[in-house]
Amino acid sequence: MKKGEIVVKAKYISVDPYMRIQQSALNSWEVPHPLGVVQGSGMAGEIIASNSDTLKIGDWVNCYTGWQQYAIVKDTEVRLLDTKIATVSTSLGILGMPARVAYFGIIEAGKIKTGETVVVSGAAGAVGSTVVQIAKLKGCRVIGIAGSQEKMNFLEQELDVDATINYKENKTQESMVKALKTACPEGVDIYYDNVGGVITDAVIDVVNVGARILVCGQISQYNHALDKPEMGPRFLHKVLYKRITIQGILARDYNDRMPEMISEMGSWVKDGKIKYKETIIQGFEKLPKALSGLFDGENTGKMIVKV
Amino acid sequence: MKKGEIVVKAKYISVDPYMRIQQSALNSWEVPHPLGVVQGSGMAGEIIASNSDTLKIGDWVNCYTGWQQYAIVKDTEVRLLDTKIATVSTSLGILGMPARVAYFGIIEAGKIKTGETVVVSGAAGAVGSTVVQIAKLKGCRVIGIAGSQEKMNFLEQELDVDATINYKENKTQESMVKALKTACPEGVDIYYDNVGGVITDAVIDVVNVGARILVCGQISQYNHALDKPEMGPRFLHKVLYKRITIQGILARDYNDRMPEMISEMGSWVKDGKIKYKETIIQGFEKLPKALSGLFDGENTGKMIVKV
Repeated sequence: MKKGEIVVKAKYISVDPYMRIQQSALNSWEVPHPLGVVQGSGMAGEIIASNSDTLKIGDWVNCYTGWQQYAIVKDTEVRLLDTKIATVSTSLGILGMPARVAYFGIIEAGKIKTGETVVVSGAAGAVGSTVVQIAKLKGCRVIGIAGSQEKMNFLEQELDVDATINYKENKTQESMVKALKTACPEGVDIYYDNVGGVITDAVIDVVNVGARILVCGQISQYNHALDKPEMGPRFLHKVLYKRITIQGILARDYNDRMPEMISEMGSWVKDGKIKYKETIIQGFEKLPKALSGLFDGENTGKMIVKV
Repeated sequence: MKKGEIVVKAKYISVDPYMRIQQSALNSWEVPHPLGVVQGSGMAGEIIASNSDTLKIGDWVNCYTGWQQYAIVKDTEVRLLDTKIATVSTSLGILGMPARVAYFGIIEAGKIKTGETVVVSGAAGAVGSTVVQIAKLKGCRVIGIAGSQEKMNFLEQELDVDATINYKENKTQESMVKALKTACPEGVDIYYDNVGGVITDAVIDVVNVGARILVCGQISQYNHALDKPEMGPRFLHKVLYKRITIQGILARDYNDRMPEMISEMGSWVKDGKIKYKETIIQGFEKLPKALSGLFDGENTGKMIVKV
């Protein structure tokens, strides 16, 4: 172990939808991810050996060391966790990467304003369930789109979302448009999209002039439509009429602003103003199954594998 | 004639692609345009009667009075033209509405920076031929997409565009991607889109991280695909990877900033730094044919009907 390095024993390992993108045969991402390498991921674990001046054995850290049980990593490449704020698993979810893109996405890219109507797809997921709560804290009308009654109950009863739509009961654009019009009598100002496909086609039909669409994920496309794109109705003429702004956002673009996010989100979580759920699956060998489960809607909140 | 009103005799009447959108059966636009009303349009004409304190007979003005030969209009609703800057017909083109959305679109919405690569579709049209020249003045590498050798020659030889692509010779996404990669060795930073369809599908495949796509027009869709959208490959996952921003822009959003645009563009036109072409068709009765001609690529620069 070199000077400054530590050994971290994984306790919680992250599975996230973006990992499916890395399996695309085409060049879809900056980081190519060939067969035969460790799947990259976030991890929360305990330091079991240290050659660092700043971190000691027993400290809990978050790092990006992938799907492995032990990792040697430089002390400058980990984030020391404050276990007084929240459990260490939250460093992968409500105080981690998904929260970062939720927070900066809706506040900065989305330019959210009090009184606006915000629609969130994948609303019960790690990112979506954070976005809906930030939007509520900002004084917006918030509509969550999810895929089960259980998730809709979670959104309405626990997260105080104003209305929910079950996309599995609205599989056509027409049906989804109708549901959106009922849920959004004043139209839609911000659409935070984690899903794409027919849901997005429909939202574009009900947005207001000057609407912002944040593309944080397109999970409906990852399993089948990256190498051979799915066909959908062209919609850029509607972007014109309504002067819509569509912006792709990635958590990594806000990497260096983690302290700023933790500062505000940490207080919200500690004070119970923001709630979170974790779907924790036990067993290192379950990682592929857990990843696959994201695409079957098996998680509410952040999907994590406990080692 | 009421106090403050004038009578304008039309000399030049505008035809623009947006007029085709107004013929859509669905609610595509803020201003519905039923049968049996005058087609709205810009006009440049001479005052032949005046009850105004500020405008007199013989003054030349620009107004939005539609396809008619004479119009009674309030003096506050016209723009007095300075015939020393340029011919009055330019108030419909290079110093009018198309220039306004070109100017503010590429500079403000597009945040154009020296050294970037800018691709413009419909590059030989009224808006496109203005955008390419502003982008050149800003020190960018500029690629114009057009539909004939004559237009490509105009772009390269008269407007100093760096490279051109004939979309009629690149009808598939694959072929257009190949042409774009040759023309844009450093990728594309800004795409100013007047056309949409396959061209846009292709550009999205070659843009750089952080690219801006300005949707100013989607002329490829207006004739057949507004009421029943054309299908195309879904691409929002690519918007995600590249953190692209797509923004719809309309000339009307910059209506109140006309003096600012005229100030800079007027000097450029007067000094010959920005050139322009007009395709002028003679005869009031030719207005429908002229409009139709826009969709067959019959114009280079601004299409105008002279009355």
